[in-house]
Amino acid sequence: MGRRHVSQRGDLSPERIVRLEAGAVVLLDQRRLPDEVVELRCGSAAEVAEAIRTLAIRGAPAIGVAAAYGLALAAERGEDVDAAYGVLAKSRPTAVNLVWALEQMREDPSPERARALHEAEVDRCRRMGGHAAALFGPGTRALTHCNAGGLATGGYGSAVGALRAAWEEGLLAHVWVDETRPLLQGARLTAWELEALGVPHSVIADAAAPHLMRLGEVDCIVTGADRIAANGDSANKIGTYGLAVAAAHHRIPLYVVAPTSTVDPATPTGAEIPIEERDGAEITARFAARNPAFDVTPAALIAAIVTEEGIHRPPYEESLPR
Amino acid sequence: MGRRHVSQRGDLSPERIVRLEAGAVVLLDQRRLPDEVVELRCGSAAEVAEAIRTLAIRGAPAIGVAAAYGLALAAERGEDVDAAYGVLAKSRPTAVNLVWALEQMREDPSPERARALHEAEVDRCRRMGGHAAALFGPGTRALTHCNAGGLATGGYGSAVGALRAAWEEGLLAHVWVDETRPLLQGARLTAWELEALGVPHSVIADAAAPHLMRLGEVDCIVTGADRIAANGDSANKIGTYGLAVAAAHHRIPLYVVAPTSTVDPATPTGAEIPIEERDGAEITARFAARNPAFDVTPAALIAAIVTEEGIHRPPYEESLPR
Repeated sequence: MGRRHVSQRGDLSPERIVRLEAGAVVLLDQRRLPDEVVELRCGSAAEVAEAIRTLAIRGAPAIGVAAAYGLALAAERGEDVDAAYGVLAKSRPTAVNLVWALEQMREDPSPERARALHEAEVDRCRRMGGHAAALFGPGTRALTHCNAGGLATGGYGSAVGALRAAWEEGLLAHVWVDETRPLLQGARLTAWELEALGVPHSVIADAAAPHLMRLGEVDCIVTGADRIAANGDSANKIGTYGLAVAAAHHRIPLYVVAPTSTVDPATPTGAEIPIEERDGAEITARFAARNPAFDVTPAALIAAIVTEEGIHRPPYEESLPR
Repeated sequence: MGRRHVSQRGDLSPERIVRLEAGAVVLLDQRRLPDEVVELRCGSAAEVAEAIRTLAIRGAPAIGVAAAYGLALAAERGEDVDAAYGVLAKSRPTAVNLVWALEQMREDPSPERARALHEAEVDRCRRMGGHAAALFGPGTRALTHCNAGGLATGGYGSAVGALRAAWEEGLLAHVWVDETRPLLQGARLTAWELEALGVPHSVIADAAAPHLMRLGEVDCIVTGADRIAANGDSANKIGTYGLAVAAAHHRIPLYVVAPTSTVDPATPTGAEIPIEERDGAEITARFAARNPAFDVTPAALIAAIVTEEGIHRPPYEESLPR
């Protein structure tokens, strides 16, 4: 995999986040942001899968887009497309968009198809943002976890897209950004995006969120999702579940903003969603550690699920299929 | 302030944690553990206050002991004892043991008095540990936050003392250690103590705790406290409140283990406890950040408060004064 430093900071255009060039999928290395803005060139489907597995690109919709480009690259290079499909599908276990995107590519693994899928993903984010902004009152102080921004979706963002739309409509006063241990996607990526967008924000330790809720300084919580079961149970970055429990305790609404590609009708409830357990060394190389990377938030704790189709309210078994 | 590397790792004796020598209060620099085992020599009350303010020594009972030694040092050196009292009392705002310990020293600010206070603090921890172990069933998987260990109390530990006693009685199967952002007292200090004691444990990201509760892998939560209001509301390291809300949601008991010096009858409820807000740079020097260092857990979410006097159950207004 080749690396190249690029100069522009805060450029959040879709093609900067991930694109297909002649002979390579090129993506912004999200492990190095915001200290270094480095592009990674993946010359094969296996290298794209490696980039997904090692979190150079992360976020459920974005890894779906990267996998689609990876499959198109494999087809172009004359690789065994079925083998490439298998390698890409196994790169992360929790997100469902990955397999969804690969399925979209199965009949026509062409660059054009992958680019159309990418464009459609960004377009869905804009629609989600518009729907979600309707949930915001004036002066809203929102809290978000991890990075469900343009970096996570291939452009615009799901949860951050909602914040962006609310900000543009003059409804957003402040964003509390959970730093999101262990990999600090909130502190590193969401804060970087909000800074670029000019949205006022503060990074907080994840454990400070319930305290701020108790002080009455949080009006709503907005997160993305990696997989949404048919009943609305939503898997997302570890910590989302704790936020949901605390939000319910304080009667603060938690909104999940995610494209329909995140909804998995084949998974009835959260109990059937596999939770990736990552290397404890991500927390600390020094101690015995355990590192579940996601948790499941029961539908009962989610006030609304916003997709590009609109705002879904409980019971989700009925509202999500529509 | 002088610094000296010391060789023994895992030596948790009270005099190693903090002691009075001729002309200096000597304490283990907890900011550098576990990477470096360094003793800090404070040659004046002001230097002791600086060590407390900058967290070289932390933990409500331990800073009370350090302040007592600091006052004895001031008296010995012929400093203005009232001025030294004022400087030491202002070094941290949330803990009440600090002023309590200084009050104990007011009439007789002698080395003997300070050493007796230190010894009594450690003795209280042993008694607390014995009481708290009675709350543990066989095979308990406990979760703890921050460091309420020997390092925090001047020896033996309050919450960690409870775990230690339960371990010695064969009741403890595993300890989940919240890493405790931003300063990682759990990952750095509690894990170091449990390692020295041979207690099986895993460090987890703070945000993973509610997920483990949901999986049924947590039987109880044990924390210390920095101040306990008359009604039982307890201020402790930021994140304790979120644990308490999640524990209540899962019907898991949360036990606060703290010496009676932590109980502040002059503070009716948690609303009157000042919460220290520390420099956002502790979270990250790069972003706008907010950094409340403590939160308040309402008495309604605390299953029992264990002091050296025994196990107190709700209503705490009645059980704590006894």
